[in-house]
Amino acid sequence: MKALEERILREGTVLPGGVLKVGSFLNQQVDADFMMEMGQEIHRLFASEPVTKILTVEASGIALAMAAAVAFHVPFVFAKKAVTSNLNGQVYSAPVHSFTHNTDCRIFISRAFLSSDDCVLIVDDFLANGEAIRGMTALVEQSGARLAGAAVAVEKGFQPGGDELRRKGVHLESLALVDSMSDTEITFRR
Amino acid sequence: MKALEERILREGTVLPGGVLKVGSFLNQQVDADFMMEMGQEIHRLFASEPVTKILTVEASGIALAMAAAVAFHVPFVFAKKAVTSNLNGQVYSAPVHSFTHNTDCRIFISRAFLSSDDCVLIVDDFLANGEAIRGMTALVEQSGARLAGAAVAVEKGFQPGGDELRRKGVHLESLALVDSMSDTEITFRR
Repeated sequence: MKALEERILREGTVLPGGVLKVGSFLNQQVDADFMMEMGQEIHRLFASEPVTKILTVEASGIALAMAAAVAFHVPFVFAKKAVTSNLNGQVYSAPVHSFTHNTDCRIFISRAFLSSDDCVLIVDDFLANGEAIRGMTALVEQSGARLAGAAVAVEKGFQPGGDELRRKGVHLESLALVDSMSDTEITFRR
Repeated sequence: MKALEERILREGTVLPGGVLKVGSFLNQQVDADFMMEMGQEIHRLFASEPVTKILTVEASGIALAMAAAVAFHVPFVFAKKAVTSNLNGQVYSAPVHSFTHNTDCRIFISRAFLSSDDCVLIVDDFLANGEAIRGMTALVEQSGARLAGAAVAVEKGFQPGGDELRRKGVHLESLALVDSMSDTEITFRR
């Protein structure tokens, strides 16, 4: 998505350790109108899928999930994070490791909100090592729902998550796919 | 907002301890189209204010903040929660006590995203004791921004937060104001 790439070039900053900061419009301050355009683009990319539900994980995925859900006119569900593994049987849950924070947690959603009748599109703001999306695909599998695919705003193409998901046959769409970045240059995959 | 009251009566469940569960459409599964209508209603209620920014706190306030931000065509910012008080000087921060979870945390936002040029509308899903909104008003004060007011989806009118804010002169609008609730009946304030 050209407008997103331009925005990243204009406002993104690269920090040591491969961190791309886009907090001015994507995930701390959110340009709501622009987010709605991204939701429309996700709808265009998955228009052929009979999506019944958008799935994301708290907190920074929620705005884009909301925008996509409006575009599809379906509800979205956000998985919550729990430090404990002591979750009762009324939930689907999966482990997620965060490389950024070097922490382990579990994500979970109530069983009431995902079933084998659903066709699910996973949405998130960032994809790097793919742990969050892998966790969400596990929730979808537990529910028996069909996975339409996954859409992310920004994929870090130099980290393995995206290509691993593609190899597994997941239909993955990244609105901006960063191939490499340094403090002087960000390049996108064509 | 009549449609919200009807939805609460239809789908809400009251649990022991004064907990109103509306996770089927408001804060775990989110009815995105309905949320957009609520955002439009918030815009109608604050249309006379020159709002430049919506402020909420992660995670369950984000969807309604997004909807309000789209209605106003302004960005929204979500405060993050940190267990530690060891935050650096680049942030505004305030303490928040959660009665629901009986925990203390701090909420914070980057100074880059709120300034004395802003006119801020605070948005959240629930208002009970008012701790989260009080914390957010502290962030607004620290930034020197003007507070337009606060809008919440559901106020528990039998808890003191809402009336305390009104006594302090905060322009508070609740789309549904629950006056009392039991496992058999939910009544709204007229």
